[in-house]
Amino acid sequence: MEQLRVLIDADDEKGLVYKISTIFYEHNLNILSNNEFVDKTNGKFFMRSVVEGDIDAKNLKKSLSNLLPTNSNIEVIKPTKKNIVIMATKEMHALGDILIQHEAGELDANILGVISNYDQLKSLVSKFNIPYIAISHVDLNRDEHEEKILEYLSTFKDIDYIVLAKYMRILTPRFVEVYKDKIINIHHSFLPAFIGANPYKQAYERGVKIIGATAHFVNNNLDEGPIISQEVIHVDHAYDWKDMQRSGRDVEKIVLSHALKLALEDRIFVYANKSVIF
Amino acid sequence: MEQLRVLIDADDEKGLVYKISTIFYEHNLNILSNNEFVDKTNGKFFMRSVVEGDIDAKNLKKSLSNLLPTNSNIEVIKPTKKNIVIMATKEMHALGDILIQHEAGELDANILGVISNYDQLKSLVSKFNIPYIAISHVDLNRDEHEEKILEYLSTFKDIDYIVLAKYMRILTPRFVEVYKDKIINIHHSFLPAFIGANPYKQAYERGVKIIGATAHFVNNNLDEGPIISQEVIHVDHAYDWKDMQRSGRDVEKIVLSHALKLALEDRIFVYANKSVIF
Amino acid sequence: MEQLRVLIDADDEKGLVYKISTIFYEHNLNILSNNEFVDKTNGKFFMRSVVEGDIDAKNLKKSLSNLLPTNSNIEVIKPTKKNIVIMATKEMHALGDILIQHEAGELDANILGVISNYDQLKSLVSKFNIPYIAISHVDLNRDEHEEKILEYLSTFKDIDYIVLAKYMRILTPRFVEVYKDKIINIHHSFLPAFIGANPYKQAYERGVKIIGATAHFVNNNLDEGPIISQEVIHVDHAYDWKDMQRSGRDVEKIVLSHALKLALEDRIFVYANKSVIF
Amino acid sequence: MEQLRVLIDADDEKGLVYKISTIFYEHNLNILSNNEFVDKTNGKFFMRSVVEGDIDAKNLKKSLSNLLPTNSNIEVIKPTKKNIVIMATKEMHALGDILIQHEAGELDANILGVISNYDQLKSLVSKFNIPYIAISHVDLNRDEHEEKILEYLSTFKDIDYIVLAKYMRILTPRFVEVYKDKIINIHHSFLPAFIGANPYKQAYERGVKIIGATAHFVNNNLDEGPIISQEVIHVDHAYDWKDMQRSGRDVEKIVLSHALKLALEDRIFVYANKSVIF
Repeated sequence: MEQLRVLIDADDEKGLVYKISTIFYEHNLNILSNNEFVDKTNGKFFMRSVVEGDIDAKNLKKSLSNLLPTNSNIEVIKPTKKNIVIMATKEMHALGDILIQHEAGELDANILGVISNYDQLKSLVSKFNIPYIAISHVDLNRDEHEEKILEYLSTFKDIDYIVLAKYMRILTPRFVEVYKDKIINIHHSFLPAFIGANPYKQAYERGVKIIGATAHFVNNNLDEGPIISQEVIHVDHAYDWKDMQRSGRDVEKIVLSHALKLALEDRIFVYANKSVIF
Repeated sequence: MEQLRVLIDADDEKGLVYKISTIFYEHNLNILSNNEFVDKTNGKFFMRSVVEGDIDAKNLKKSLSNLLPTNSNIEVIKPTKKNIVIMATKEMHALGDILIQHEAGELDANILGVISNYDQLKSLVSKFNIPYIAISHVDLNRDEHEEKILEYLSTFKDIDYIVLAKYMRILTPRFVEVYKDKIINIHHSFLPAFIGANPYKQAYERGVKIIGATAHFVNNNLDEGPIISQEVIHVDHAYDWKDMQRSGRDVEKIVLSHALKLALEDRIFVYANKSVIF
Repeated sequence: MEQLRVLIDADDEKGLVYKISTIFYEHNLNILSNNEFVDKTNGKFFMRSVVEGDIDAKNLKKSLSNLLPTNSNIEVIKPTKKNIVIMATKEMHALGDILIQHEAGELDANILGVISNYDQLKSLVSKFNIPYIAISHVDLNRDEHEEKILEYLSTFKDIDYIVLAKYMRILTPRFVEVYKDKIINIHHSFLPAFIGANPYKQAYERGVKIIGATAHFVNNNLDEGPIISQEVIHVDHAYDWKDMQRSGRDVEKIVLSHALKLALEDRIFVYANKSVIF
Repeated sequence: MEQLRVLIDADDEKGLVYKISTIFYEHNLNILSNNEFVDKTNGKFFMRSVVEGDIDAKNLKKSLSNLLPTNSNIEVIKPTKKNIVIMATKEMHALGDILIQHEAGELDANILGVISNYDQLKSLVSKFNIPYIAISHVDLNRDEHEEKILEYLSTFKDIDYIVLAKYMRILTPRFVEVYKDKIINIHHSFLPAFIGANPYKQAYERGVKIIGATAHFVNNNLDEGPIISQEVIHVDHAYDWKDMQRSGRDVEKIVLSHALKLALEDRIFVYANKSVIF
């Protein structure tokens, strides 16, 4: 008995659930969990099912494709460990949180490597026998630097997600295009507040009473990609921006880890610059 | 085009979604929203759908009954205002919150009346032209007091929910039995912590750093019925128990209103002394 | 034995606490609570003490003034009910929450009146025997409309705070100047995200996973005054903007009530477009 | 210029702040931060000040002792790294979180060693060059096992705190007595709910909608010591107890790290089985 994750998004129309559940029934599948959402504004249908049975993924996908409207997206996914690459700069907390989960066997992913534009994190990453690749940006323009990163990334056959665990450089549209909807970033504010550099300083200047963190897919506009997860904590007048930064680290790592978990479990649909999460 | 809420719980078996969606399809219904949950431990299936179409509720229920296992519970509900009675004692915040929502037209309910064992709330309730019935417990034993309340309640043809908005007396099993799964209480602690009298004092004595409130259905064991909704707030050493009580009021009213809203929208299944909420 | 609230802000220098506590000691006062904060960035000292003793407020203030640097701000406040005017438009929840607290005797304020640019809230406000003044903006330009409001406000000898309980019009600098640091507004977003009109629609478009509310003093820049209190709730893809609006109401009313409570208890210092709150 | 933390608790009486600030003034100290709390119920005064100046800790303590009531507790602490020992069993998340902070230089502590009753965590701890001592409980009674642990602990001259990072065995009164108010435990529920074994299973059975974690000092009654910090997360019907356990890990590690940080910064007073935290 095998489990499969079935993700379908389609233009909404009457009978979709009926058609899909008919296929499941005819293939003698047990539905372990089932989530649906209809975006009425955009006329879109989303469904994620976990099914169990004696079935081949390709066959199931074919059956679904035959019955569903032609412009539907159908994914039938075998739950296996996904391949991720982590990019970071100097800060240890978000990266460390993922490494510990990986070490504990709680992360459904293989970490192919960690890329940084500095050497600082090498000592930490090496402890865990994970490849550390320092690609300095010094003396390189943005394109040259990214070229080197892309070159390294291209040595891997399959990368499911690139996780920016406080990678403090902006990626160009070219880079983003190569890994569309595959790059997960943690931004250290509750977006869309405090886009850009040093959000904690911005938050301090504005005198906010809550600070937060946002995990999102990266698109071509800085900090404007589809949001996956957000969380906040309360602060008060006694916090200067460095206190906010210190306190914010816990939120950052938790939010990033949560978003990564959702991605690894194939729970995220991206549509209209938003996420549907089951 | 009419909307109906369909609530089904059944022993889990293969093909339930297929069967139900077939019925919906054959009746030419549009599924506006659909939630399912399978409790694997207990082998139970729960589903709530909102469907739209040119259909009679009785017909739809009959079709579903014919196809589903005989011990399934099937409810097909026309979304109309439900009838509620509120019981309170002396505190105004939880009751007031419901009255304001009612006045604003934001509560999908008719308030048939407010029962209290004191006179204090009469002035407030009367402003809103809602019947206020003071049934004092003085000089009565518990059974006699409840008898009077039950008598008053029996004058109403239909009561969907009885809302205990800080009603500070314990109901007997006899009373509870009459309105099984229809009595919603707000308890001023995050149950199961601080069951019983004066939970804020208990919380203060214990030195907790969070206090909370719990909305639950009332069963025969004090504060042990199925939980619907819970929320907490942070406190610190500077709070004495009266400060906790004051701060707790906001949580109490919000949690009770939230639970009531879920009930009025037919979003709650009760099973195994727990709630499944869609 | 009388209680007094002493609020002092001054340029920070060595010995301030010593000097102030000396005065308290010499006046034979008991310190019931004491909060201090030094803003190192700006070299500012803030202190709020509640003292008890046989003392006249004027005398105490004089003693403090004699000893403290000349540009210090010293307030010695007798805790009495403050006078507030509420301004609203059509929505009932934030206004209703304050009215219920007032009715319950839990609000340390006299509500002098409620001003609205519509008639809708009259029925609610009148139940509580509070003056309702509808001042329509129709056929008036902004200045003319505000002139009428200011005229009405000028009939009161003392207004401690003007509470904008979802008053949906922007106040001009002229109006704001008259009631500087006395106007408390509730904005229906976690500022500085979603400044301006219909923040819930903006939040929906952006696909955020948290929405919030911000209570702040009003200054001359829209939604940019000193923040007093903020709170958020989680939302997901299933919320359209009207769902966000509905769910947001609870946060709005709680945050506004909280900020008002802080103001009525003289717990807020405003400095450098921020608030220090004890 | 040196910084010192001054912690004073005393029976409350008029003039304490005056006396203390006089001492600070006479020693020509700058007050960087100052927190006070009077527990009116118990007539206790608590104060934590951070002062800066050209001063010796012993001298300052002597001056304070001379002026304050004899049964006052006065601590004058030089902010240096404290010495901690971590005890754990098999789970990696809480321990790992502390190790990463330590590695990042964000923990004001020397980790003298990690003690476990199993071997599982050795591989992780060894990566960080921290001594790992496996002291198996197999074939030993509780006293014998603890004797071995105490023996190991006694090899250290100074232990400021023992951190139980999911150490799953109950400590005897004898052990607790040796390290009174120095043992910080993380319990995986919002105490006092779900005392004892497998709180997640208990939480699941009860059908709660929030789960949490509590960091507390250990005393002689299981899970009943003074609470330092608590936090919760929301769950729903779809969580079985293992899901709760998985989701709870993040709360556990954050709450424990937070409590440890408070302890390392000398921000906690313990009194009447509660904590006062500045």
